[in-house]
Amino acid sequence: MANTESATSTERATVEQFARDYFDHLAPYVRLESVSAQHRGIQETANWLQHTFRELGASYVTQWDELGGNPVVFAQFQGASDHTMLFYNHYDVQPPEPLDEWHTEPFEPTFQDDGTVRARGIGDDKGELMCRLTAVRYLQDHGGLPCNLKFVVEGEEEVGSGHFADYVQHHAADLAADVCVWEGGSKNGQEHFTVTGGVKGILAFDLSVRTADVDLHSSLGAYVDNAAWRLIDALHSLRTPDRRLAVDGYYDLVAPMSAATKQAVDRMDFDADGLRQRAGLRQPYLRDDPKLASVNEPSLTVNGFNAGYTGDGVKTVIPREAHAKLDCRLAQGQTPQACFDLIRA
Amino acid sequence: MANTESATSTERATVEQFARDYFDHLAPYVRLESVSAQHRGIQETANWLQHTFRELGASYVTQWDELGGNPVVFAQFQGASDHTMLFYNHYDVQPPEPLDEWHTEPFEPTFQDDGTVRARGIGDDKGELMCRLTAVRYLQDHGGLPCNLKFVVEGEEEVGSGHFADYVQHHAADLAADVCVWEGGSKNGQEHFTVTGGVKGILAFDLSVRTADVDLHSSLGAYVDNAAWRLIDALHSLRTPDRRLAVDGYYDLVAPMSAATKQAVDRMDFDADGLRQRAGLRQPYLRDDPKLASVNEPSLTVNGFNAGYTGDGVKTVIPREAHAKLDCRLAQGQTPQACFDLIRA
Repeated sequence: MANTESATSTERATVEQFARDYFDHLAPYVRLESVSAQHRGIQETANWLQHTFRELGASYVTQWDELGGNPVVFAQFQGASDHTMLFYNHYDVQPPEPLDEWHTEPFEPTFQDDGTVRARGIGDDKGELMCRLTAVRYLQDHGGLPCNLKFVVEGEEEVGSGHFADYVQHHAADLAADVCVWEGGSKNGQEHFTVTGGVKGILAFDLSVRTADVDLHSSLGAYVDNAAWRLIDALHSLRTPDRRLAVDGYYDLVAPMSAATKQAVDRMDFDADGLRQRAGLRQPYLRDDPKLASVNEPSLTVNGFNAGYTGDGVKTVIPREAHAKLDCRLAQGQTPQACFDLIRA
Repeated sequence: MANTESATSTERATVEQFARDYFDHLAPYVRLESVSAQHRGIQETANWLQHTFRELGASYVTQWDELGGNPVVFAQFQGASDHTMLFYNHYDVQPPEPLDEWHTEPFEPTFQDDGTVRARGIGDDKGELMCRLTAVRYLQDHGGLPCNLKFVVEGEEEVGSGHFADYVQHHAADLAADVCVWEGGSKNGQEHFTVTGGVKGILAFDLSVRTADVDLHSSLGAYVDNAAWRLIDALHSLRTPDRRLAVDGYYDLVAPMSAATKQAVDRMDFDADGLRQRAGLRQPYLRDDPKLASVNEPSLTVNGFNAGYTGDGVKTVIPREAHAKLDCRLAQGQTPQACFDLIRA
């Protein structure tokens, strides 16, 4: 709230009660299964957002879809001053699988004992937008918005925001604002709110191998090649013994860190021990200075691998195909296309 | 039939019509989903076999289960002579997955245009036992069995027959016979029936890696280890660049081939080009002499690999666990335990 600093405890309790009461009104946003990777629930979610922005009194609400990809929802609210704040959010979420690892229903927002809410995408970043919309409602019920607001909510953040830069170019005039806030973030192990300035780029791709039209019997294993083995060998060849990328020229693209960035990294909160404990890590960090690696070290991650029979028991099969999903986190100076070209070369 | 050589075409047609009519009576055997790897349909199938042997007039039918594992069904028939033939079969089948690759229902026997029947396990080896039971029925309807018959049908062949050797020891007197036939086999590319003398041993095991309690976000990929990468690296380390096993002492266990075996291998039918075409192999054979490799070369096959997210689209995850299924084909002189100990060492 704009007046948090001077809020009395009574005012704070009123606001908290309001937010709690209003939660049910916004809960359908979480129930919409807007999984961009699986092409699920996208238009329904964009529709819900447009309806909700209108209901909250937005002066202008629309959907941008003329450039392809998932629709981008845009809304504008008139406020008391000429200043304009722009909020960037995304309505898409990551796939909820594996489903049997959930203790609650992924798309049913569930209050935990500590007062937090658990649901797919609630922290990245449906919950952030719900907080903002709650604030809009509260302010409009208590004297109106202090400034103009704009919201731009895209639906491809979880799959790399492939179309968003083009939409920004195309609608630069609509998006003009005095300040832009990207909703997101979390608390660290010391319960400090984290503020992030700049993030790595990302390149994601699939690798597939097919060695035959049919799965073969493993009695032929001494002389017939195997898609799983070929993919294992190919992936292994992409890394050096110290687990960096074994791709010629890859690290030459990384821009040197400026003195200012180095200073900022030095001052950064980084709770290496807390992460180790919370995640139950069994292996040492790959780098002596994980904080520095987190900022400026490229990575190549196998997100998934599947081949052949993976159920219970034994199946004596030579898999005819194997698939891996990978992503690269890019350091400053690296572009997705340049890195992809080097990896493919 | 015993009198095939002298059968007239009329007799042959009569027999073929009988077999076709009797098929429906035996078809329930295929519909029983006796997947040993998945612990499905085992006792039901053993019950069906015992019932069917009794119905066909067996003088003695029983189930051996006192040593653990899936029950072994044993049946005896009295014939006209003192000679006894023993047939070894197994009632278990491989898992039918992946189901979407089937053009017919896996557990519904379906006649193809060429007169063959397609179903899970029909060729290994439910169909073989069904042929034999059809012959028993026909002979009993046409003058009786020419000799004593014994059938032993186990339910763990597809998972390595872990208990069968013990059952054979325990019931050696019941199994005594003048000749034993292991039902199975196929035609090769030249439509020659194949007769196999001796097969490789097998060792199957799973490898699993767990690096954390939870999947982590791939933005941490530069410094947090990844179960998929660890398993890829571990598997890669098990092979030499020429795709043999990189396990100390492994090949020392292989017994030299005798002159007689070498001669037999020379005379063996081996249709390398036919296999290449039928299976649509994209890669060269791993050995210059695949026929020799098929007889005496150990192998290590990845039967399956799974880790992380393997669905559509992108999921920016560091898998916390990764699993591989492997089997080793063993050459003469290699025992499963000795090979497992060497691989583990």
